Amino acid sequence: MQTGDRNDAIGVGVIGLGRAFTLMLPTWVQDERVRLVAAVDPRIQACEQFRNDLGGATYDTVGELCTDPAVEAVYIASPHQFHAKQMEIVAAAGKAILVEKPLAITLEECFRIVQIVDTTQVPVIVGHSHSFDGPVLHAATLLSQGRFGDVRMAHALNYTNFLYRPRRPEELDTAQGGGVVFSQAAHQVDTIRILMGGMVESVRAHTGRWDSSRPTEGAYSALLSFQGGAFASLTYNGYGHYNSNELMGHVDEMGYERQTSAFDYTRGALSMVDETSETRLKQARNFGGDDYRREMPASTPHHQHFGHILVSADKADIKLTTKGLDIYQGGSRSFVATPKSSVPRAEVVDELWAVVREGMEPLHGARWARATMEVCFAILESARTGNDIRLRFQVALSRKLCPRPDKGSHSGTKQKKNPGS
Amino acid sequence: MQTGDRNDAIGVGVIGLGRAFTLMLPTWVQDERVRLVAAVDPRIQACEQFRNDLGGATYDTVGELCTDPAVEAVYIASPHQFHAKQMEIVAAAGKAILVEKPLAITLEECFRIVQIVDTTQVPVIVGHSHSFDGPVLHAATLLSQGRFGDVRMAHALNYTNFLYRPRRPEELDTAQGGGVVFSQAAHQVDTIRILMGGMVESVRAHTGRWDSSRPTEGAYSALLSFQGGAFASLTYNGYGHYNSNELMGHVDEMGYERQTSAFDYTRGALSMVDETSETRLKQARNFGGDDYRREMPASTPHHQHFGHILVSADKADIKLTTKGLDIYQGGSRSFVATPKSSVPRAEVVDELWAVVREGMEPLHGARWARATMEVCFAILESARTGNDIRLRFQVALSRKLCPRPDKGSHSGTKQKKNPGS
Repeated sequence: MQTGDRNDAIGVGVIGLGRAFTLMLPTWVQDERVRLVAAVDPRIQACEQFRNDLGGATYDTVGELCTDPAVEAVYIASPHQFHAKQMEIVAAAGKAILVEKPLAITLEECFRIVQIVDTTQVPVIVGHSHSFDGPVLHAATLLSQGRFGDVRMAHALNYTNFLYRPRRPEELDTAQGGGVVFSQAAHQVDTIRILMGGMVESVRAHTGRWDSSRPTEGAYSALLSFQGGAFASLTYNGYGHYNSNELMGHVDEMGYERQTSAFDYTRGALSMVDETSETRLKQARNFGGDDYRREMPASTPHHQHFGHILVSADKADIKLTTKGLDIYQGGSRSFVATPKSSVPRAEVVDELWAVVREGMEPLHGARWARATMEVCFAILESARTGNDIRLRFQVALSRKLCPRPDKGSHSGTKQKKNPGS
Repeated sequence: MQTGDRNDAIGVGVIGLGRAFTLMLPTWVQDERVRLVAAVDPRIQACEQFRNDLGGATYDTVGELCTDPAVEAVYIASPHQFHAKQMEIVAAAGKAILVEKPLAITLEECFRIVQIVDTTQVPVIVGHSHSFDGPVLHAATLLSQGRFGDVRMAHALNYTNFLYRPRRPEELDTAQGGGVVFSQAAHQVDTIRILMGGMVESVRAHTGRWDSSRPTEGAYSALLSFQGGAFASLTYNGYGHYNSNELMGHVDEMGYERQTSAFDYTRGALSMVDETSETRLKQARNFGGDDYRREMPASTPHHQHFGHILVSADKADIKLTTKGLDIYQGGSRSFVATPKSSVPRAEVVDELWAVVREGMEPLHGARWARATMEVCFAILESARTGNDIRLRFQVALSRKLCPRPDKGSHSGTKQKKNPGS
């Protein structure tokens, strides 16, 4: 594996300049611990914009990208179904990997990935997901330290318009990794596993597929039990009526305050558009697209979030907010702020840096992510069969969490002086 | 059965002047469609206060109370374990019955009660429960009319200090009907069944018993599936840290605005008190007790509630509020007020009047209540065995709901001129 000097920014090559990359771009360009050096994408326009705006090289294939000596870590942000194959190529080249969730869309693929990681020993982090959100890591740190006694129960709720945003056809086909279980439960389950220590024992769930024009799961409720008797209730509805941002002070998933909670896209809005046009509509909003606007608004005071989350321990209930933690004891509330970088999603770079530069074990490693996907697969299986599903491949949260450093250690984020460059 | 004239107030005899009666008293004294005429209670002081303050007769036994010709309907508000036996006596006397939830604490008792009702043909209503709350009946009426298309999903959440309020010993013993599943799921399940049409197919649940000094269920999460594929997630936590009144505009269960959400009683507050003293502490706050204060504050603009409830149908999500319904479509919200009587819980008298004076079928009849208790028993069984429980005795909501009459029909509530008399 190529490694830079201990203080050098990590050179990042990107596979896939689509939606996930578009949402991570503010992080890559603002955080001085990383620099974008190379990319692969089938869209010529996106590659052009990458070279012009970001100054990196672009390649035709993943194999070629991996030969670039400036690429120290590869960010795999391609559609879900390509993750396993691409990780194999990147790992063989000895590069560190940050791969978008979901890790893969079958348990077999997840096993293959773990085997690749074991064989090649490359560092792997799976994310971004909202389990990287500052308040999640903050709460998990306090809870894993036993500050509030045993952790007993959690509750997570999120209502969005997920199903009615512009989609590629495979995003509406569960067999190809579409629907809210693969894309959204992957956030919610990962978050709850981190808060509860990781070891899910059983899953019972129901899913909703209620719009024949978008024939995949648009909603679910899942009940998880954990080793030791704790349990959690997870509910997600992506059908676009109620918006649970109202429970988060009208701050949206990305941390921005919204005047209105009305959705841009709702049921029927895309009904006159054919599949090809809808794919184009989606691409147009992404990096390299006609409607793409590089949004880099002033840093908000809010962390990103994934809906309303409550965790109950013996001595307190904790509610995650967009600024930190509300800690309730006897109905009285105290607030503890979660330190926040001006760089969005800096927590992902915290973990990348810790793993690549400091040799630490990842919190969001391949086995951890396989366990999260095992829960997601169990949600689908339980809903299909009506059975309670027992889990077999769970892993415990390592006690050594990687929360945001509170102040000026080397690995603390520093924002680039000229983040557009 | 004795029956009054069509326009006469219904003469009500009470069995048990404890907590449930104390909470219903404002209804009995304010609603001109009913009048309290008799009572039975083992506490001499409570009987004295009943005679002195309310002007009714008191008796030593249920049998004697039933011989009073002024008693047209009997309100059974005794501890859970006495309901079945007392209903048998009252039904044999041909009196109409309003019995507090839970109907009974075993399925066998529920069956016995249904048999008694079938044999005697006396009208039976089970309540009060929060499924009588105006917004619940309002939403159920709109949904059952198909106004928003198929009903798909519901979510209910309630966090209170239930476990740490003063209790009699049996209230902390599940075998005797103690714990939150009997006392609180009976509200939440009944409410969700009314909103979703009643026909639960399966239950999976986990319960929490986390304080050895209060050794009964203090929390649960349950996942219910309904005929036709709808599902619901129900979560309750009575361990007294977070207070979900904050999701209801800081309005408490009884409809009063609270400056603070801090709880009067929290974990440990009763730890220096022995069982006998705790029972006395509880009794002291009830009718006839030393600390009892007849609270009859000015009518609030708020309906009573049982926490945060969302129901999703194809065309809208509905959130129940303390003033009516927030209806969300595409993230935009519209509000529909639920008419409210100045008499609290007037909806109970609406149903009593409809059944006793107008010969209507009750919404909250014995079979309906047995089905709700079947779900509660299934919550306990699922938590104990780890299995998904299939239900066998569910009944559908009759289309004919009894919502509050909107305006001046005969059966509309009128407040008594001098409600203290």
